[in-house]
Amino acid sequence: MTKRLYNARIITMLRDEDIIEGDIHIDGNRITYVGPSKPGTFDEEIDCEGNVLLPGFKNAHTHSGMTAFRSLADDLNLQDWLFQEIFPREDKMTGEDIFWLSKLAFLEYLTSGITACADMYLTPETTAEAAEQFGMRCQMVSGFNKFSGPIDIVEKRFNELNGRNPLTGFLMGLHAEYTCDKSTLEAMSELLHKYKAPLYVHMSETKTEHEECKGRYNLTPMALFDELGLWDFGGTIYHGVWVEDADMDIMKKRGIRVVSNPGSNTKLASGIAPITKYMQKGIEISLGTDGPSSNNCLDFFREMFLVTGLAKLRDNDPKAVDAYEVLKMACVNGAHAMGLFDNDALAEGKLADIIMIDMHQPNMQPILNIKKNIVYSGSKSNIKMTMIDGRILYRDGRFIGTDAEEVYEKCNEITARLKDI
Amino acid sequence: MTKRLYNARIITMLRDEDIIEGDIHIDGNRITYVGPSKPGTFDEEIDCEGNVLLPGFKNAHTHSGMTAFRSLADDLNLQDWLFQEIFPREDKMTGEDIFWLSKLAFLEYLTSGITACADMYLTPETTAEAAEQFGMRCQMVSGFNKFSGPIDIVEKRFNELNGRNPLTGFLMGLHAEYTCDKSTLEAMSELLHKYKAPLYVHMSETKTEHEECKGRYNLTPMALFDELGLWDFGGTIYHGVWVEDADMDIMKKRGIRVVSNPGSNTKLASGIAPITKYMQKGIEISLGTDGPSSNNCLDFFREMFLVTGLAKLRDNDPKAVDAYEVLKMACVNGAHAMGLFDNDALAEGKLADIIMIDMHQPNMQPILNIKKNIVYSGSKSNIKMTMIDGRILYRDGRFIGTDAEEVYEKCNEITARLKDI
Repeated sequence: MTKRLYNARIITMLRDEDIIEGDIHIDGNRITYVGPSKPGTFDEEIDCEGNVLLPGFKNAHTHSGMTAFRSLADDLNLQDWLFQEIFPREDKMTGEDIFWLSKLAFLEYLTSGITACADMYLTPETTAEAAEQFGMRCQMVSGFNKFSGPIDIVEKRFNELNGRNPLTGFLMGLHAEYTCDKSTLEAMSELLHKYKAPLYVHMSETKTEHEECKGRYNLTPMALFDELGLWDFGGTIYHGVWVEDADMDIMKKRGIRVVSNPGSNTKLASGIAPITKYMQKGIEISLGTDGPSSNNCLDFFREMFLVTGLAKLRDNDPKAVDAYEVLKMACVNGAHAMGLFDNDALAEGKLADIIMIDMHQPNMQPILNIKKNIVYSGSKSNIKMTMIDGRILYRDGRFIGTDAEEVYEKCNEITARLKDI
Repeated sequence: MTKRLYNARIITMLRDEDIIEGDIHIDGNRITYVGPSKPGTFDEEIDCEGNVLLPGFKNAHTHSGMTAFRSLADDLNLQDWLFQEIFPREDKMTGEDIFWLSKLAFLEYLTSGITACADMYLTPETTAEAAEQFGMRCQMVSGFNKFSGPIDIVEKRFNELNGRNPLTGFLMGLHAEYTCDKSTLEAMSELLHKYKAPLYVHMSETKTEHEECKGRYNLTPMALFDELGLWDFGGTIYHGVWVEDADMDIMKKRGIRVVSNPGSNTKLASGIAPITKYMQKGIEISLGTDGPSSNNCLDFFREMFLVTGLAKLRDNDPKAVDAYEVLKMACVNGAHAMGLFDNDALAEGKLADIIMIDMHQPNMQPILNIKKNIVYSGSKSNIKMTMIDGRILYRDGRFIGTDAEEVYEKCNEITARLKDI
């Protein structure tokens, strides 16, 4: 199956270059050509009408199945929200619930131009199944902690969920320092060493959590994990709002990435991450929506505006974090932060994870600087097409391949059951 | 012309009440019925398919014609942006330019559910003409300052632009303390007294501006204006980021409202307004997008999320500013802050300025708390219909009555001409 997308403005994200006017050609799930208009014979040709093609956004940290709790438990701090509202309800969730709830999130990702996500949730098998059936590129991440039972389950999933489908994979993750004890952390370190695997973990999201760790161990979470060898094969931290300078030095030394979740950090009043400091230190930043119960939406345009806007406020500097840097976080770095390196740009040989931004809408006019238009002025309503692995799953407001109303119905049933605790 | 909107979930905004399931009936530009399903004979019937009807959002502070400068001069502080980038280009603008540029903003308002705006810009006559031709409800606000020439022009516009068309009106405004000298302020005070009219003005947007006024007069802008009698008939300040406690006391005493512009204040790093303090003092808060060159988009979902999100961050309190309070700012208070009291709720006798929120989208599911869904999770893509004065101007992504492509073309021509200084 070959496709030609023509009459496009192409932002390749290979570098901050001029925008290419022309074609993208696709064979199966791979890009075969990016460049000036080049007609030929194709199974399908799509006139892009001058709209922008961009590598899809990468949601580098989320909990998709938490759509169950959207607008159920708002306006609480993270600790109360998690321990009083979320954990008791999660106890009642089944793998099948999470299958449907994840599909609801995947639908929302499509509307926001998200073509891949790193998903930390309870039943990775059913999330993977949902992703494969749906067509979403999804890296499952374990949220191992002291309540999870023996670590064998992580190893089993690592072996079973990697390599079984090109769309899905499994990464070794811990929930957080504050939900683990030292033996849990040591068990994970051992497993990481066995497979030479990087670690994924919530870290220094709230001031309380960061300070409590220092109280317990006389070390920041970052330093504690370093001492336990948890960074020996690299890794990624989620949130990283309260990291200290010395933590950043460890990150730089160990090649640790950070996924910022500005929407969630704002709504939960967790704080503003030190984005410009990370940039100065050369630490790769990407973006995540976090779960739909803490954000509450799964909208990369919100995250893109916030990551630069909040940095401007924090630094008292309107020049902080420019638009191209934000696009790089959203399209490129996010792929790396979920262990993917083949879907980060529009170029020959790369995977066809492509979105089309509708320029024929008033918020994209006039056309003076397209990258700035997208970051500062863009909205979900500009997502005209979302393609994952060469398949168009969303176009002109319609979902292709998934019955959205069926998903809504199932999720409302599930939510009604989980609501009362 | 009568209309029946049926099968709707109606949020009247009369109070934080249960959502009504049923009908809205309209005759011409007025609502004649809100309540349970009540069939009858109508010129037009619209099945709302369970979607939400809400009074339109009120953009209580904007500069619509600044669409010319979107993505042209970003990443600057307010003073440099205004004096180096904006003022020189505005010198080259014509009334006809502003006619087209305002229409571009109006199109964007429709996509965001904005049914009325208070517009401070250079040629109110051509903005009013654009609004009337387009069907936008628009209150022109003078931006009088020391460079404007004699104040007669404000009086002339006040008399000519009020009463000429039900969609438009004119309010007496000053640009800001820092662009006026004392004689300008005194001239405005005299005019306000002649007509017993309230004042509209940018105030305490940046710390610099606020402090410089104190340096000049040994008074805050709010206190200075009070001393000059500028608040004798009430009024509204735009931004109000740096107001002090004593300023709020004056506001409370004089019945002054505040329009917060969180998107603009974020992008220009102007600061976070003291929203919860205003609420505690009983000062009515509404929302504005500010102009599209400082924000850069005209998206009320962004403003709604930010006004509560930034308050949570500022106060370090995730409970700050709940969702209904935000909807009240957006739908109700904004009308009052532009001198309109007939388009602030869905009730018999009110103007038919109504929007439909699409609940059949993944970000509105599951349906646990609709008001929270809208404020925390909503997006422009949820605006299924925008009706102003009984006329549907936007529906299912299509504009009715205005050729959007013509507007884009004109605005790109204008921008190309204005770009170089």
